[in-house]
Amino acid sequence: MAMFADRLMEAAARVGAPLCVGIDPFPALMNQRLFGDPRQDPEALVRFGTALIEATAPFAACFKPQLGLFEPFGPEGFAAARSLCTIARAQGLVTILDAKRGDIGSTAEGYALASLGPAPGFDADCVTVNPYMGADTLASFLTMAADRGKGVAVLVRTSNPGARDLQDLEVGGSPLWVQTARMIAPMTSPLLGACGFSGLMAVAGATYPAEAKALRAILPTSLFLVPGYGTQGAGARDALAGFVRGADGVLHGGVVNSSRGIAYPKEADRAASMAEWRALIANAARTARDDLASAATL
Amino acid sequence: MAMFADRLMEAAARVGAPLCVGIDPFPALMNQRLFGDPRQDPEALVRFGTALIEATAPFAACFKPQLGLFEPFGPEGFAAARSLCTIARAQGLVTILDAKRGDIGSTAEGYALASLGPAPGFDADCVTVNPYMGADTLASFLTMAADRGKGVAVLVRTSNPGARDLQDLEVGGSPLWVQTARMIAPMTSPLLGACGFSGLMAVAGATYPAEAKALRAILPTSLFLVPGYGTQGAGARDALAGFVRGADGVLHGGVVNSSRGIAYPKEADRAASMAEWRALIANAARTARDDLASAATL
Repeated sequence: MAMFADRLMEAAARVGAPLCVGIDPFPALMNQRLFGDPRQDPEALVRFGTALIEATAPFAACFKPQLGLFEPFGPEGFAAARSLCTIARAQGLVTILDAKRGDIGSTAEGYALASLGPAPGFDADCVTVNPYMGADTLASFLTMAADRGKGVAVLVRTSNPGARDLQDLEVGGSPLWVQTARMIAPMTSPLLGACGFSGLMAVAGATYPAEAKALRAILPTSLFLVPGYGTQGAGARDALAGFVRGADGVLHGGVVNSSRGIAYPKEADRAASMAEWRALIANAARTARDDLASAATL
Repeated sequence: MAMFADRLMEAAARVGAPLCVGIDPFPALMNQRLFGDPRQDPEALVRFGTALIEATAPFAACFKPQLGLFEPFGPEGFAAARSLCTIARAQGLVTILDAKRGDIGSTAEGYALASLGPAPGFDADCVTVNPYMGADTLASFLTMAADRGKGVAVLVRTSNPGARDLQDLEVGGSPLWVQTARMIAPMTSPLLGACGFSGLMAVAGATYPAEAKALRAILPTSLFLVPGYGTQGAGARDALAGFVRGADGVLHGGVVNSSRGIAYPKEADRAASMAEWRALIANAARTARDDLASAATL
């Protein structure tokens, strides 16, 4: 069984850049003429997500369904997100379930089974986890990940303004997020792939490139999941700040997520046909892929 | 529309103690002869939860479904947890959805809508939220709670061993959890009820009574959601350490959760009839209620 880190890095090499495409279904932004209104028919979520996966697969190292945008549609929304993981997996594509779960003991086991376990679980390749409750939050996810060739992405330094409220508070001379990174550093080895990176990922916001470099020093092998690229304002250079140059002269070390910038480009909400929509979406994904590929070789 | 804090305090007064009954479905502990095996038939979750609610309603101020133990059963497990919220609400019972969600912006809105919003949402009375990402994690939940007479329970100091890893780290002379409490203190007023308490709850582990007292000083009006009572080892006196004595001479200020101690008393897994099972469960709930009631008047 291939390790998650290797599968993700191979996918990035195949498409030519470390691009993660976010699947964020916003009814108000979706082209409802083509997909329907998920508030009336939750199957619209599956149609939209499937079309997004198909249009962007040549450019995406992985896909990140945002579970918080599926759950408002109830159990059918939850089921739709799971269907998209299944559809992506059937095509050999890598999925990171953005669920930001965080609990302990048997409840953490439950969340690990739900996100990374086989049906009726999502069987996603990786899941995002919130570390506030401590290292015991991570144990069940790591065990499941090691057993099933999966990954775990821990929130370390997020890209939102409120990240300052707790993550940046100074603890013993360093911000709290440094402590979070130090807490997970000893756990990276079991998920270390042949590529030299670990599937114990760190979520590291692209809006703080200096911090990404500092984080890399603490977590030399962790793959980074970088949000905040594109519509949240960070450019490709900044998004890759925590990456390291490989023997091939290219920056490696994680994936950079783009959600709205790819799924909702201008005009896509008014596209009259699926072919027209698909061309706009593919173009947005290609542009992001090229932007990241270019920055990675500079 | 009654405020959540008032509804919860009225329910506690009605049953005579601030007891929260956790709904934690463990297939290995459940009496499968009576309810079936949820791994084969997720409707078993609804049968188990409904029976638990019916048997303990005379003693429970509220019910706390642990979503992490429903999600492993897939969309049908998710649906079962929602059904239990609906069933409880139809009987005028208060629910706290233990989901520990935490995200920002439109995703936080999504989680708030899913947990506190009307169908297809859970329409729970309160939801647990993880504050690691900062104050902007809470905004959407608080808006939804204020609009719909609901509550929000923020993880402040949890009762697990790993709570030491981040929550206890020293920040400017105090542990991080004190900073979390200070961060939410200014947000309590919009959810303040006539009872004098706010529906912006703080999760405060019963295993650290000294900390509960310190937390009460920072959050004088927040209701506490106290885990760790019963099987996790804390007694009733400790669990009520952060409560305050009212004019009636009784300690008020939150609810104390018991999950396994009530849902899985000795012999219940071997009960041969529903009547026998119900008597054992009701007895366990009555014992917890009496224990808390007694400690609250000491």
